[in-house]
Amino acid sequence: MFFGSDTTAPAHPSVLKAMARANEGYPHSYGADHAMDEIRAQIRDLFEAPDAAVYLVATGTAANALILATLIDPWQAVFCHRSAHIETDECGAPEFYTGGAKLVLIDGEHAKISPDALKNALSTTGQVGVHGVQRGMLSLTNATENGTIYTPAEVAALTKIAHADGLPVHMDGARFANAVVAAGCTPAQMTWKAGVDALSFGGTKNGLIGVEGVIFFDPKHAWEFELRRKRGGHLFSKHRYLAAQMQAYLDGDLWRDMATAANAAAQRLSKGILTIEGASLVHPTQANGVFASWPRIGHRRAYAAGAEYYFWPEGASLEGPDDETLPARLMCSWSTTNDDVDDFLAAIRG
Amino acid sequence: MFFGSDTTAPAHPSVLKAMARANEGYPHSYGADHAMDEIRAQIRDLFEAPDAAVYLVATGTAANALILATLIDPWQAVFCHRSAHIETDECGAPEFYTGGAKLVLIDGEHAKISPDALKNALSTTGQVGVHGVQRGMLSLTNATENGTIYTPAEVAALTKIAHADGLPVHMDGARFANAVVAAGCTPAQMTWKAGVDALSFGGTKNGLIGVEGVIFFDPKHAWEFELRRKRGGHLFSKHRYLAAQMQAYLDGDLWRDMATAANAAAQRLSKGILTIEGASLVHPTQANGVFASWPRIGHRRAYAAGAEYYFWPEGASLEGPDDETLPARLMCSWSTTNDDVDDFLAAIRG
Amino acid sequence: MFFGSDTTAPAHPSVLKAMARANEGYPHSYGADHAMDEIRAQIRDLFEAPDAAVYLVATGTAANALILATLIDPWQAVFCHRSAHIETDECGAPEFYTGGAKLVLIDGEHAKISPDALKNALSTTGQVGVHGVQRGMLSLTNATENGTIYTPAEVAALTKIAHADGLPVHMDGARFANAVVAAGCTPAQMTWKAGVDALSFGGTKNGLIGVEGVIFFDPKHAWEFELRRKRGGHLFSKHRYLAAQMQAYLDGDLWRDMATAANAAAQRLSKGILTIEGASLVHPTQANGVFASWPRIGHRRAYAAGAEYYFWPEGASLEGPDDETLPARLMCSWSTTNDDVDDFLAAIRG
Amino acid sequence: MFFGSDTTAPAHPSVLKAMARANEGYPHSYGADHAMDEIRAQIRDLFEAPDAAVYLVATGTAANALILATLIDPWQAVFCHRSAHIETDECGAPEFYTGGAKLVLIDGEHAKISPDALKNALSTTGQVGVHGVQRGMLSLTNATENGTIYTPAEVAALTKIAHADGLPVHMDGARFANAVVAAGCTPAQMTWKAGVDALSFGGTKNGLIGVEGVIFFDPKHAWEFELRRKRGGHLFSKHRYLAAQMQAYLDGDLWRDMATAANAAAQRLSKGILTIEGASLVHPTQANGVFASWPRIGHRRAYAAGAEYYFWPEGASLEGPDDETLPARLMCSWSTTNDDVDDFLAAIRG
Repeated sequence: MFFGSDTTAPAHPSVLKAMARANEGYPHSYGADHAMDEIRAQIRDLFEAPDAAVYLVATGTAANALILATLIDPWQAVFCHRSAHIETDECGAPEFYTGGAKLVLIDGEHAKISPDALKNALSTTGQVGVHGVQRGMLSLTNATENGTIYTPAEVAALTKIAHADGLPVHMDGARFANAVVAAGCTPAQMTWKAGVDALSFGGTKNGLIGVEGVIFFDPKHAWEFELRRKRGGHLFSKHRYLAAQMQAYLDGDLWRDMATAANAAAQRLSKGILTIEGASLVHPTQANGVFASWPRIGHRRAYAAGAEYYFWPEGASLEGPDDETLPARLMCSWSTTNDDVDDFLAAIRG
Repeated sequence: MFFGSDTTAPAHPSVLKAMARANEGYPHSYGADHAMDEIRAQIRDLFEAPDAAVYLVATGTAANALILATLIDPWQAVFCHRSAHIETDECGAPEFYTGGAKLVLIDGEHAKISPDALKNALSTTGQVGVHGVQRGMLSLTNATENGTIYTPAEVAALTKIAHADGLPVHMDGARFANAVVAAGCTPAQMTWKAGVDALSFGGTKNGLIGVEGVIFFDPKHAWEFELRRKRGGHLFSKHRYLAAQMQAYLDGDLWRDMATAANAAAQRLSKGILTIEGASLVHPTQANGVFASWPRIGHRRAYAAGAEYYFWPEGASLEGPDDETLPARLMCSWSTTNDDVDDFLAAIRG
Repeated sequence: MFFGSDTTAPAHPSVLKAMARANEGYPHSYGADHAMDEIRAQIRDLFEAPDAAVYLVATGTAANALILATLIDPWQAVFCHRSAHIETDECGAPEFYTGGAKLVLIDGEHAKISPDALKNALSTTGQVGVHGVQRGMLSLTNATENGTIYTPAEVAALTKIAHADGLPVHMDGARFANAVVAAGCTPAQMTWKAGVDALSFGGTKNGLIGVEGVIFFDPKHAWEFELRRKRGGHLFSKHRYLAAQMQAYLDGDLWRDMATAANAAAQRLSKGILTIEGASLVHPTQANGVFASWPRIGHRRAYAAGAEYYFWPEGASLEGPDDETLPARLMCSWSTTNDDVDDFLAAIRG
Repeated sequence: MFFGSDTTAPAHPSVLKAMARANEGYPHSYGADHAMDEIRAQIRDLFEAPDAAVYLVATGTAANALILATLIDPWQAVFCHRSAHIETDECGAPEFYTGGAKLVLIDGEHAKISPDALKNALSTTGQVGVHGVQRGMLSLTNATENGTIYTPAEVAALTKIAHADGLPVHMDGARFANAVVAAGCTPAQMTWKAGVDALSFGGTKNGLIGVEGVIFFDPKHAWEFELRRKRGGHLFSKHRYLAAQMQAYLDGDLWRDMATAANAAAQRLSKGILTIEGASLVHPTQANGVFASWPRIGHRRAYAAGAEYYFWPEGASLEGPDDETLPARLMCSWSTTNDDVDDFLAAIRG
């Protein structure tokens, strides 16, 4: 009953096996090996993007911050949702890597930016010449921090607005696989075909040990990115072990299978919770996270049974009236089983 | 016959086994798990430093740059050898992480700083009030980039000079294990007992997949380091896989065994090369790297036999007079066998 | 009829005379001269702060950004109003000088932060450990960008909240003199007696050529500030000409006389505008700026008569219905005369 | 007898008069006024560069650091002489403004870089792919910190080497006027005709209060520079007072007259010193600084007579044998008179 985070889940056994296989021989360091050539080719195939620049880093924060720094100048603004990971959970990494760019925060239901909200933000930023920060780029999180997704059409509507002002678009895809599975689309449809210029192609939250792909659909950014990655301390000498993880991820579409399992677990959990008296969803369940509210008595029972998850926002107390409803976040992963879900629901019911 | 780098070697099998063992259960993310508690205790024991702040990152550049940034201000200078990794091989990561500090380069034979050279550098930096950068810290590399080591007494002589001016001292120990083994001392003797304030405790070049310990002997730096690590994108959500590597490294002193093997291979190689006509050492062989010069004909034969290593400095040509001597760098690792060495020597001899 | 900005006004003749007087002899450069000693003593007297660290820079952006960088770390947040100059008009200078700190924006009527709004912002920032940026400081603008002021009591209410969390407080006093005059208090009452830790003591918008005082009421920040000032290129070699301006400003309380004149002009203008049919104030007129709205026909007449001022927000059009009201900003300075005001009002009336 | 620095001299009376004239009316702020249009045209004429982008800032450090930051990326190197002002006297402003670029120091007699030394530095930097910092630009100081100059031919020889590697060239012309006068060439011959891409056109050390021109001969850098200037706090609201100084500087070639006077004073002083027994020049006297050595007894007499100047390097003592020679730096300015020189020489002679 571990719903605390998708990052507490173990890695898929195939990933460990790939690591062991990679532990042979003396390939060149720093990604100049055959494994990286293969991955580059596989990712270009998967994304139908034969010219894409493809890199691997080990953390989502590194992927996001390095992409942002590559796409904009220090005096520019990144437009993002107020709840975006780059704003709330990276301790200012975007500001650090960009040399002091500004994040302009956009509000919106269920952690999603609407076209109107984006237009409004664009119209009030960078309009005073040299005095204010300039408009730089748009960053979308998909799946969002609230377990919702943007469809390719929704992405396209936003990138069109950004591109009209000459702004490139980044997608923080820490949970990209979950979004693609939920949308029933291809990776290409969710990204460059919908106007996305660069993607953080998440693996860590979806069954890997610690690897995120970085994809620039326009390869002109490649060399700058490589320098920034090295300078940030994110170029691995024994790069083959990052490559091994990504190979396992790509082989047989393991990335899709794991996201499918995680999303299905979330659906089962979401539906189950709605059968509990007094329960309701805070956000629609579209990817691998369930954001729901139910009476305190159920939380008390779940915690007593050893369940792990967070009140959301954090800080609620188990002490108080039994029937007061308290919101929580429940994250599922590739390894969440039907039994895990059912045991958890049973625990809440008591 | 792979002597190109200690980073082309595979990881030790124990490391892979530890990774597999770590792939169980749902421990807390971001290093808030039991494994990190154990490592902290083990490293404090190993270094006889019960108060030390201990962290793990995945690359040597991250360890070095984050430590530097924690110890100094942007307007200060880091004194280091001209051939230090932080100067030559990190694409300016120290400047990036510190917010623009300056590296003041000190020359010295065999990549080592002498007390006089350090005194001279200190006497000509930070002497013009607010106009010039201020003196900030000393960074020593041990083992050095030229395969030599500082003994604890040599370290102490330098840290004493730095401390007299109030400057903290960092040791870049990407090859710390090799230095300790070569000096026949304890980790404590090589570090805080000799005046070192912070250590990059290297694992990646010595048989791990990608882990470096960061040790501050004065824990006052802990919280700032944690924030800088996160902000740099170097805090791993699935931290347990870094921890697993470090546990394997510490268990049964594997770190020492691997360094002993690497150093012994280098000694065998060094002695063997000296038996080749026209060969000589460029630097004394004290750790796991051999810096030697021998006639071009020998290089030609070695390359023809498939050996991998670098001319040092790079750029020499296999074309030219047979008997002209050309300098090279040969790196040994824990996995270098006597056969590897002997085959290589045989190849040179033709 | 120049109400475009308080920075289009000429300098007071006394300032030019002081510059001419300063143009004698060969005093030491970089502020190590007698003039700076005198100013330091005068400002300490004026602020009843015998230990204050006192510096001069030439622009308000430099004063603000250097103070912010001195008071916080790169991973911290500056709490400020959404319309603060540091957010809207400095092209990201705070982010640049701090090394990438984040500005957390607080909304509030008339460009003022309320205690509740501050508490709310504090309660939702820096609450997720290492993952988010940490709470750093509060920055208040007084007089505000909307022509209103905080009274000493209002300042004290806010600094008390900030100090309870250990956060220092900066006052952006680009129009400090106008605020002090409006509040009828002493400089000390408006600053350290109300809990302000550092002040940008504006001169440029109040009759000087280009000088801002920087005052740290706790001198522990002095040396770091001096280094940051130099490193930012804001230490003047011929510092005596900055000193001359500040001396003229302080002598006979010229600063107060000029602010009194500017505020009085704004009052006359504000009252006059309210006599125009259809006119109303957007913000109360408390300092030297009038934020008012009146029918387009009046704007058309004023512009036709050669008046200079800005629609606020910018971008409104003179084309359209006569009776539609449009908001504008009208800035007065020490040199605004009654005739200027009356001519302008007459122009609106047509 | 003030030879301490060219920055202790007063401003030329014409400059003060121009400031007073500028103190009329309500021109637009931030350089959007007619005065700046005129200056731009005048400087383009003077430099025979009709497309040049022209700006004004108030300090030499600002001019240099902003130009460097505009021309290179954070991961690049600036090649400069070890004694360059950007290395020794700006407290790391170049590193700060560039976001952490590296200064690669080149040695050379009399503070000058030789073509061979430049070639050598280029050949050993940026040669290890992504691992090291990349080659970025060349910065020349003319006149140098040692009172010598580069002729246009010497400049051309160096810029040709830099351009062959694609590197732009900056000239730190804090004493540009002195160099041009000494070389007997035009500003164009000393700059773009000799391959210089951007110039810090110094005024502060040559009779102004505090203004430096910034000239990019290729205007493509204009907008980036404007943003960096604003973000650095170096855009003046009351820009007209910078403009006034520069207008006075350009009118009737005052800049040339003042430099001519300063250089002539240095020649008189240099020749006079050589008549003193035991005296010799440390560097040739080519601009407005004399670097000479003479017996301690002469120094003792000069100081006793109230002369102001620096031992160079600083730190020598007036205590010691009478006949030991001690090196000193003597800076002349536009305001140094023949009497000043002769009195000083008389003082040395006793």
